[in-house]
Amino acid sequence: MEEKILKLFKKKPEHYLSGEQISKSLNITRSAFWKHIEKLRLYGYEFDAVPHLGYRLRKAPDKLYPFEISPILKTRIIGKDIIYHDTVGSTNTIAYNLAKSGAKEGVVVVAERQTKGRGRLSRIWSSPKEKGIYLSIILRPKMTPFKAPVMTLMAAVSLAQAIRESADVQAFIKWPNDILINEKKVSGILTEMDAEADFVKFLILGIGINANTKILDLPKGATSIAQESGVFVVRQQLVKALLERLEQNYLLIQKEGFAPIRTQWRNLSVTLGRRVKATCMHKQIEGEAVDIEPDGGLKVRLDNGFYEKVMAGDLALLR
Amino acid sequence: MEEKILKLFKKKPEHYLSGEQISKSLNITRSAFWKHIEKLRLYGYEFDAVPHLGYRLRKAPDKLYPFEISPILKTRIIGKDIIYHDTVGSTNTIAYNLAKSGAKEGVVVVAERQTKGRGRLSRIWSSPKEKGIYLSIILRPKMTPFKAPVMTLMAAVSLAQAIRESADVQAFIKWPNDILINEKKVSGILTEMDAEADFVKFLILGIGINANTKILDLPKGATSIAQESGVFVVRQQLVKALLERLEQNYLLIQKEGFAPIRTQWRNLSVTLGRRVKATCMHKQIEGEAVDIEPDGGLKVRLDNGFYEKVMAGDLALLR
Repeated sequence: MEEKILKLFKKKPEHYLSGEQISKSLNITRSAFWKHIEKLRLYGYEFDAVPHLGYRLRKAPDKLYPFEISPILKTRIIGKDIIYHDTVGSTNTIAYNLAKSGAKEGVVVVAERQTKGRGRLSRIWSSPKEKGIYLSIILRPKMTPFKAPVMTLMAAVSLAQAIRESADVQAFIKWPNDILINEKKVSGILTEMDAEADFVKFLILGIGINANTKILDLPKGATSIAQESGVFVVRQQLVKALLERLEQNYLLIQKEGFAPIRTQWRNLSVTLGRRVKATCMHKQIEGEAVDIEPDGGLKVRLDNGFYEKVMAGDLALLR
Repeated sequence: MEEKILKLFKKKPEHYLSGEQISKSLNITRSAFWKHIEKLRLYGYEFDAVPHLGYRLRKAPDKLYPFEISPILKTRIIGKDIIYHDTVGSTNTIAYNLAKSGAKEGVVVVAERQTKGRGRLSRIWSSPKEKGIYLSIILRPKMTPFKAPVMTLMAAVSLAQAIRESADVQAFIKWPNDILINEKKVSGILTEMDAEADFVKFLILGIGINANTKILDLPKGATSIAQESGVFVVRQQLVKALLERLEQNYLLIQKEGFAPIRTQWRNLSVTLGRRVKATCMHKQIEGEAVDIEPDGGLKVRLDNGFYEKVMAGDLALLR
């Protein structure tokens, strides 16, 4: 109902709407309407109320509310159900537990702040309140666990595309799952899954974006989109763009495999052609990153001329 | 303490031991000793108590109690901690939740009966009480999810070996995770994992064995070890053999990779050389199973002479 009321106000942003009018058109009582307005005020919406004229929406809060995102979202699967929290431990943990309990593919958990944001390899993902985006998506692709790295690359492509669409910045992908602007990290992806040996039960794509986050709140080497572009990004629009790109690329990968995403990944990469140092589970290698493989691995040319494929681990861009 | 008291009785199976003697040697009070004897009686142990002589252990129950298994178990990791339940939903679910909460590698959950036993691909694993073995092992191998199928094959090798050691039967492996005796299923493995795209957080090996299970309690096509060998198997000894083989092969795989296990797998296989029909996620193939690949996949020669590798799915042995 909040969504419907907001829709009416947003349709005529400068107009006053009478409570009677709105109640009638939504088929609710005046007192129910009143309660919704009070609820919206609690959410941070500001209304001008003028006797005989009615109400006008003066200000909508900068929040990732589902009833702000859903009306503008053009997807069929991803984000059809958005679960909002102001503050959570970790959106990935919540999404994981929901998926374990049978939640459907496409459910999105979004939060304004994480107190236990997690990054790859059990690291912390710094998630201060002002004004990042922290969201996790439940996917149930019919695939083996071998294909999971490809899903991370698909998410990275979607994320870079969405950031470029929402802000005037050149976002690039650093293998496997970081998004950089001007060589500094603005976003990361944590892919987690529940699987049998040869069968993925579900997969959680966790995405953290330093959208308008204050630089002082971020770890060294990190930046925000706002910092790099000089303009605040409209977070709701960025979430919309991200979910739409994700759905588009997810459907593409299921229809045509990794090849078309791989091409896009190459174009958005800041990794290929660079000298890199990869720290894997059992060793360290250094060389030039030359390509991304069909299975999502990074092909590195060592100084002795041999090639090696890196499937896991950390990557440092050297020059 | 139950373990210590049982140890004393088992050392001299035909002798009466006085309560005073035992209390003294274990440094507990007479009344504490009494309570432990009562507890053991509740567990199903039967004692003869004769005035002036003391106690004699007349009968130990056929149960998979940790204090029966631990004293005979020669492992360093797997089974150092055994968690026993009479009846559970699924030992894999319990082990999974324990691992999520940080339980150590090697923890084993064992049960006499499962009410929601699970098999591969979300199927049911029939787990009647009389007298199967249902256990799950937490492993934390440092590896990528790609290697998980190899862990299933390692478990299958260990399981076939342990069954052969504990009973006079020829147990064979049907790819990927069934153990057959005389072409009928006696045991299955369900490998589940919690992982990032390129990093396994933990892996649960779930194993169900129709040890002395009544045939009437089993689904069609299944059998029990006792049925095929004509003799009841000592379940505690089978669990011991299984955990020891698992540890041995697990350490081997970490030290030398899959190659030595692969050789053992080939020797124990009922799959290779057979005509098979494989039902994978997206298609069905038929042909002759010719080898197991280094990544755990099954190499099948199609009728047109081409080879295909099966990584996931169901296999039917045709002739």
